[in-house]
Amino acid sequence: MTRQELFNNILRKQSFLCVGLDSDIKKLPSCLKGKEDAVFSFNKAIIDATQSYCVAYKPNLAFYESLGAVGQITLEKTVAYIREHYPDQFIIADAKRGDIGNTSEMYARAIFDYADYDAVTVAPYMGEDSVKPFLLYPNKWVILLALTSNKGSLDFQLMEDAKGERLFEKVLKKSQEWATDEHMMYVVGATQGKMFEDIRKYAPDHFLLVPGVGAQGGSLEEVAKYGMNKQCGLLVNSSRQIIYADSSENFAEAAAREAKKVQEEMSGYLKWITNEK
Amino acid sequence: MTRQELFNNILRKQSFLCVGLDSDIKKLPSCLKGKEDAVFSFNKAIIDATQSYCVAYKPNLAFYESLGAVGQITLEKTVAYIREHYPDQFIIADAKRGDIGNTSEMYARAIFDYADYDAVTVAPYMGEDSVKPFLLYPNKWVILLALTSNKGSLDFQLMEDAKGERLFEKVLKKSQEWATDEHMMYVVGATQGKMFEDIRKYAPDHFLLVPGVGAQGGSLEEVAKYGMNKQCGLLVNSSRQIIYADSSENFAEAAAREAKKVQEEMSGYLKWITNEK
Repeated sequence: MTRQELFNNILRKQSFLCVGLDSDIKKLPSCLKGKEDAVFSFNKAIIDATQSYCVAYKPNLAFYESLGAVGQITLEKTVAYIREHYPDQFIIADAKRGDIGNTSEMYARAIFDYADYDAVTVAPYMGEDSVKPFLLYPNKWVILLALTSNKGSLDFQLMEDAKGERLFEKVLKKSQEWATDEHMMYVVGATQGKMFEDIRKYAPDHFLLVPGVGAQGGSLEEVAKYGMNKQCGLLVNSSRQIIYADSSENFAEAAAREAKKVQEEMSGYLKWITNEK
Repeated sequence: MTRQELFNNILRKQSFLCVGLDSDIKKLPSCLKGKEDAVFSFNKAIIDATQSYCVAYKPNLAFYESLGAVGQITLEKTVAYIREHYPDQFIIADAKRGDIGNTSEMYARAIFDYADYDAVTVAPYMGEDSVKPFLLYPNKWVILLALTSNKGSLDFQLMEDAKGERLFEKVLKKSQEWATDEHMMYVVGATQGKMFEDIRKYAPDHFLLVPGVGAQGGSLEEVAKYGMNKQCGLLVNSSRQIIYADSSENFAEAAAREAKKVQEEMSGYLKWITNEK
């Protein structure tokens, strides 16, 4: 998917919501427990219920890997289901991969050749040759970790050099030598609030994938206020708050209700840029 | 496996070699092509041929993921085969994982609960809560990226703060607040030669997993000279040079020959510490 297509979807659906499919077999509604491929049934119901309120899905690979090959099959079915039924959805492999060149090449093959994701999250620690193999696929995206939403983000990401430049800023700067904003996005945690102003100094036009709204405590309004650019430039992820909104047999309706609530709030913020036009 | 058990294996086998199972379906010997689960047959033959010359195996998860669920099954069979037939081998999931706490917990489940690896490689960018879930398993290990063997390691890992402390040094220092050298090792690339002296200032007693000898150009002698400590403290990985030593039907014998050559060289270096006793 191109940047323009993504922006068109955002305008049409009045949403920049990404639903995170962190589907934990231990947290499924009891009505699904014991059923054959219960995780896929759960995902399918969640997707059908939420698809009109979001522009992206983000399966979190860890949750599927914890189930071994069986989880891998569930994941493949989930991606194929979205592709087939909702081809306008942007699908993100939340994988945080990154390794030496010949190995990143294999991860890229897994994500973009074997499966058919639109984007993959990548960790920057190993530098250029660990990221570039993911950039060789036309209309596919790397979403590079810059400033994450967790407490541990303070450990290294804010390290400053002698000139006061921080590690996450170096990541933003250096990585722009590897790809344009048509192929690269950044992960910036919603829990970092006003830090979005700093991020936008380095990456004014890039899309940002923003986790941390909802269960992790980030504010959507703050993210929109400090993070939005002329082409929206935001994909805000919510996982637990939507997919586990209810644990009864009404889980899908509850998920739809939560997603709709977020979409409506987003619609309000999108007026800031559409009214400017 | 405990640190002492690993050291005992090293002394007994006179080897600190780790064989990397970067098994690429496109590079298999032609005699295996088209056979059912050819990658597993390849791994099995390589393992049987090399096991007496090494103390560890390191499947590189990317290579299996590139084949989807089928690759996952091959990987599971490979790990189970090593566990059953060569229980003294230390098995490393080369995965470079790391995510927010609840997600790293799922990756840890995949590696240590669902599968039965001894260790997993982890990327440090997201800090403490991304690493700790892997440390909750007794006698299991985190191998944290410190200074890697690739060109991209120069992009961020050598960043210096105002006091001249580099990012990889911060990773070495900070992470020692999370675990002792009984649960944590570090990845240090062989291509970094004399940098091992710097590493040993911060981590004198830790085991280091050292990729980059062989195909990537690192020198085993330099690694041993600058990196070895009283309990050896090194696991040196070789992948391509051993597993692809020959592409004929004699590939396993050729792999054994290469592994034996490395083991014999290692045996010489191990005298430096055993003679000191």
